[in-house]
Amino acid sequence: MDLSSFLTSLGTSFLIFVVLMFLFAWLSRKPGNAVVYYPNRISRDSWEGGSRTRNPFAWIKEALYSTEQEVISMSGVDTAVYFVFLSTVLGILVFSSIVLLPILLPVAATEEVTKLTNITVSNGTYSDLDKLSMGHLKEMSSRLWAFLFGVYWVSFVTYFFLWKACKHASHLRATALMSPQAKPEQFAVLVRDIPNAPEGQTIGEQVDSYFKTLYPDTFYRSLVVTDNKEVNKIWEELEGCKKKLARAEAVYALSKKTGNSEGTKPTNKTGFLGLCGEKVDSIEYYTEKINELTTKLEAEQEITLKDKQQNAALVFFTSRVTAAAAAQTLHAQLADTWTVTDAPEPRQLLWRNLKIKFFQRQVRQYVVYIIVALTVLFFMLPIAFISAFTTLDNLKKLLPFLNPILKQEAIRTVLEAYLPQIVLILFLAFLPKFLLFLSKAEGIPSQSHAVRATSGKYFYFIIFNVFLGVTVGGTLFSTLKTIKKDPNSLVDLLATSLPANSTYFLTFVALKFFVGYGLELSRLVPLIIFHIKRKYFCKSEDEVKAAWLPRGLGYGTRVPGDMLMITIVLCYSVIAPLILPFGVLYFGLGWLVLRNQALKVYIPSYESYGRMWPHIQVRLIASLILYQVTMFGYFGVKKFYYAPFLLPLPVVSLLFSFICSKKFFHFFQHTALEVAAHELKEIPNMEQVYRAFIPPSLSSKKLDDDLFEDAAPDGMVGPISGESHDLLP
Amino acid sequence: MDLSSFLTSLGTSFLIFVVLMFLFAWLSRKPGNAVVYYPNRISRDSWEGGSRTRNPFAWIKEALYSTEQEVISMSGVDTAVYFVFLSTVLGILVFSSIVLLPILLPVAATEEVTKLTNITVSNGTYSDLDKLSMGHLKEMSSRLWAFLFGVYWVSFVTYFFLWKACKHASHLRATALMSPQAKPEQFAVLVRDIPNAPEGQTIGEQVDSYFKTLYPDTFYRSLVVTDNKEVNKIWEELEGCKKKLARAEAVYALSKKTGNSEGTKPTNKTGFLGLCGEKVDSIEYYTEKINELTTKLEAEQEITLKDKQQNAALVFFTSRVTAAAAAQTLHAQLADTWTVTDAPEPRQLLWRNLKIKFFQRQVRQYVVYIIVALTVLFFMLPIAFISAFTTLDNLKKLLPFLNPILKQEAIRTVLEAYLPQIVLILFLAFLPKFLLFLSKAEGIPSQSHAVRATSGKYFYFIIFNVFLGVTVGGTLFSTLKTIKKDPNSLVDLLATSLPANSTYFLTFVALKFFVGYGLELSRLVPLIIFHIKRKYFCKSEDEVKAAWLPRGLGYGTRVPGDMLMITIVLCYSVIAPLILPFGVLYFGLGWLVLRNQALKVYIPSYESYGRMWPHIQVRLIASLILYQVTMFGYFGVKKFYYAPFLLPLPVVSLLFSFICSKKFFHFFQHTALEVAAHELKEIPNMEQVYRAFIPPSLSSKKLDDDLFEDAAPDGMVGPISGESHDLLP
Repeated sequence: MDLSSFLTSLGTSFLIFVVLMFLFAWLSRKPGNAVVYYPNRISRDSWEGGSRTRNPFAWIKEALYSTEQEVISMSGVDTAVYFVFLSTVLGILVFSSIVLLPILLPVAATEEVTKLTNITVSNGTYSDLDKLSMGHLKEMSSRLWAFLFGVYWVSFVTYFFLWKACKHASHLRATALMSPQAKPEQFAVLVRDIPNAPEGQTIGEQVDSYFKTLYPDTFYRSLVVTDNKEVNKIWEELEGCKKKLARAEAVYALSKKTGNSEGTKPTNKTGFLGLCGEKVDSIEYYTEKINELTTKLEAEQEITLKDKQQNAALVFFTSRVTAAAAAQTLHAQLADTWTVTDAPEPRQLLWRNLKIKFFQRQVRQYVVYIIVALTVLFFMLPIAFISAFTTLDNLKKLLPFLNPILKQEAIRTVLEAYLPQIVLILFLAFLPKFLLFLSKAEGIPSQSHAVRATSGKYFYFIIFNVFLGVTVGGTLFSTLKTIKKDPNSLVDLLATSLPANSTYFLTFVALKFFVGYGLELSRLVPLIIFHIKRKYFCKSEDEVKAAWLPRGLGYGTRVPGDMLMITIVLCYSVIAPLILPFGVLYFGLGWLVLRNQALKVYIPSYESYGRMWPHIQVRLIASLILYQVTMFGYFGVKKFYYAPFLLPLPVVSLLFSFICSKKFFHFFQHTALEVAAHELKEIPNMEQVYRAFIPPSLSSKKLDDDLFEDAAPDGMVGPISGESHDLLP
Repeated sequence: MDLSSFLTSLGTSFLIFVVLMFLFAWLSRKPGNAVVYYPNRISRDSWEGGSRTRNPFAWIKEALYSTEQEVISMSGVDTAVYFVFLSTVLGILVFSSIVLLPILLPVAATEEVTKLTNITVSNGTYSDLDKLSMGHLKEMSSRLWAFLFGVYWVSFVTYFFLWKACKHASHLRATALMSPQAKPEQFAVLVRDIPNAPEGQTIGEQVDSYFKTLYPDTFYRSLVVTDNKEVNKIWEELEGCKKKLARAEAVYALSKKTGNSEGTKPTNKTGFLGLCGEKVDSIEYYTEKINELTTKLEAEQEITLKDKQQNAALVFFTSRVTAAAAAQTLHAQLADTWTVTDAPEPRQLLWRNLKIKFFQRQVRQYVVYIIVALTVLFFMLPIAFISAFTTLDNLKKLLPFLNPILKQEAIRTVLEAYLPQIVLILFLAFLPKFLLFLSKAEGIPSQSHAVRATSGKYFYFIIFNVFLGVTVGGTLFSTLKTIKKDPNSLVDLLATSLPANSTYFLTFVALKFFVGYGLELSRLVPLIIFHIKRKYFCKSEDEVKAAWLPRGLGYGTRVPGDMLMITIVLCYSVIAPLILPFGVLYFGLGWLVLRNQALKVYIPSYESYGRMWPHIQVRLIASLILYQVTMFGYFGVKKFYYAPFLLPLPVVSLLFSFICSKKFFHFFQHTALEVAAHELKEIPNMEQVYRAFIPPSLSSKKLDDDLFEDAAPDGMVGPISGESHDLLP
């Protein structure tokens, strides 16, 4: 790729971004779109309908001046930790740029090269861009010392910022956990692998007596996990009917306004998918059906609570400290029974996974690991195949009917700039769902944990396949023989293939940040979907709300993407320092756009109090080590005798990671008692805490009343009489 | 080595054992020796002076009929767990023998061999013994199937017995921990890495306020660790003077009886080592000195308690459950501060290690690991050197002056049988002390943990150097070129060198069990030392008691020795099944002799409630895997095409180990709450619990009174007023 096509790529990317930004400024001022651009605020009733009179860049100012506290209150600790990650990376790149750009670019550019080796030229044509890279230096040049210093500088800047970030994230987590507002999950623990109850005892009674013995003063009550499949089915049907009734009523009300004053009663067919069968009055039909289902639900609820108890339970304590301590201690002599862990938030509990037994979880985990490993390895082939295919020359040969189009210079340049990248991005869009499914199949009890697990798997996939696949894949086939002879040459191979792909990744970064963040900011896709839905499908208020209500930031898949970016930028930071400003732009823009989205758009669907951080940091250090090893290899390729001076760096990285994990990470896994012991604003209402965990399909007015009839009246006086703890009237 | 020298070795070993056994029967009947043969019972006042009239084999009956409960009550859970290990190994070997001997020996012996390969012959001469081994089989013989089955049989017998043993050991630990007699350490936790106290607060106050916040109901008080170097020195001097005074008084009393009625007052010189300086009356001199030192000690105690507080403490709770839970939970946000672990017994606390900080412990650990690795690797050279030297022919050449002695047939045969083994055993005697020193240098807080760590190191040493060193070392030099060409040939090398050394190890086992256990039973060395001490050095009662009081079973070094034995026996179990009866004899005799010693002799110096078990089991499985891999190699050497059928075995072993560790081992690290929650016989006297942990040099009548003056009168009413918790009056 030569300079002009690179500049074209950059220019069009930037153009797209500017267009999207103005589109955002224009669209977001329309009141009808407010639910798309300010759903977070609207759902919290904190939206004053502002921003109509302000200039198109007001959101930038707002994002810049927003405090971390605002982010936490609008979008939770997880999001705040994600911003810690973004600003850490930004810090690393800015500080690296400040030193590397003024030093390395002149050093590289002023080198007088008499004969060029093939390695330094990307895709066979030589461009001005390559002049500014390390590839331009002669072998054994003493100027390489400057680049060696650069590697050290980047590494130590990374350590410094990571250390600060680690402390910061830990502080954020601690602050949230010691908040005087009590969260229900802080008073509960999740108990799994409950052994079979002795004869004549229900599981509930067993759990109660077990924990009452161990925690006589702080045990409140327990909630045995039940098999909710049936009851959920009925409940969903009931909810569906309720929605349809609401819809029918809305339609009826509308017809009164628009048509005759009596209105037309909506009808529907009772058969398959509402397409055949008897035609009935919808309102009457659904009202009747709701009554019927409600009775059925109540019966099923009783059966579920009584006969479908499973070997897991949530246990509630009246003290945060006890709950935090209980979640960390071995309860039973056999470690595969009575395993106690901290309870996730009620909304993110994966109920179906709770019953899975200890060793089954282990087996599932390893099976999933194997599947993921196979996926990571075998996706390599298609990616290499596709990236070999999607050069323009190949396209011309294989699809000759495209020739007339490809001959036009403009289209040609754009295609040349973007084609491989688009394939890559499309390719990656499919994977996360599959990985999330696999993670859930491991038997993980909470959504946030499953997302973390997905994120980890996705990271490995992305590093192996996209980064290594593209860099090594390109040169792999030509050098396969070398590898067979000497397996140690893999590092060399990686090192030599990096520079050849530098402009490829430069454009990849540019495309990703301008187009990606442009789309993110303008929310074009959700906007269009929302308007279509509102126009054609939504009738009732609830349906409209469901159409605009966004999910969380989705940082489970976002982080691996950012990781790929930081890996690319780190690996090229010294080889082609010109990538650094693009990295800064990517993360700076990302910070800005996502800050806006976090404050105004996304509504997180769970909160794990920053548990993501160790994941992020470990993978960042893995990237750093990959970078250091690659650089060692690349200095070797340049026949620089002092390359072994780089060897201490990976060791230092491991040491740094070791210290951080020993010092900080334990707290991300468990709640420290000194944090849990902070005073509460008020004594929590334990009844509310308990009810928060009852799944919606099991909670009903009638049952609740029964449930609590013999609980202590104020719901707080510690253990209550032992007769009726199994959720039964 | 031919058959006759093997039989000579066996015969002399057995003769020595019989002689030692009769010596034991005769010596143990003499009343004057009772303190050597029954110290355990005497120190517990449960000795009725029996055994004088019984037959010389009465001890065997006693040992056989003793129950596990007796062992626990006389010698503790650790010893009982050691017996679980011994009987497990015995079970494995007996069940292996029952099946392998009748099958494999005929299969091997009836093979008709036309041409012998060199490999099958030990030391170049062919003997009848080798006929009974797998080496006697032809290559590719279909009879190898029987041996392959043998490997499977031994493996599954091992799994079966280990699983049972694991459950048993866990049960023993649980029973001991849930005992209604409360142990002081069950109410305490060890707190290390206490951060610097804020201005105007002592460490003691800080600890108290920290734990009182977290455990308002169950916190009792704390004991801050102090720098006791000075106070220990004075205290030891004081104790020395007290002993000397007692001795002087005993001498004076004796002289009254034997000499004139007034007696001669003993005198001593005050100068260096009592050899020079002024001559003074001992009784007066020491009385005066004791008074002087007592004053000094009290002053130093006050200074120590006030100014020499260190960053560690023992914290006491009024509940076993709280203490057990606290020892497992993260207390501080930063995991390298306020690290809480369970408190070891007072008698086995390594006070000097307590102050070592978190990361320093990590560094020390890795430094020690490196030193141990170097030791393991570099001891290989001398061992190989020595075992090459100590053949008789070499001795003759190198030390020609020995020729006349070596020419006598009897001496020749004995020497040939024993020389290499004696060198090996002597060589190993030196190491444990050094490894214990290294383990303590890691910063481990308790003696039992240090012993476990030593045991682990010693195991690696012994397996690498003795087993691999002798087997591989012998053939290493001749095949060094093969290894250089193909590193994978190491397994083959191990496999081919095993049979050549089978008779070497047969004699090693024989020597070790007959002579070793004979000496163990007869206690000749302690007996002689005791009599010498009593006759020439001990004057006072205390001194005599100190002379006979034995230590514990010393199973820290005993276990690796047994491990070597089981590794040898396992590895040869199929190759030369004749080793199995010797293994059975070794462990059977060991069980018997040590049962006697545990019941009558040894007094354990600490109790860790069977924490040793996971160590033992993991290493046993490591031996098993070594065996399985070696067998795979050996079948390969025999060109048996179905050797890969053995490959599932190491995987099964790893799986088995994984399941055991997940299911059982957690409980060996921590106390399960359900175990700690068992009811106590009576509410413990917390004052006694607390005092049990005060080191002797710091406890004195006067100080104790002061210490407890503002403690709650009954010592049990939970937290006490906060003013005087730092051990200060």
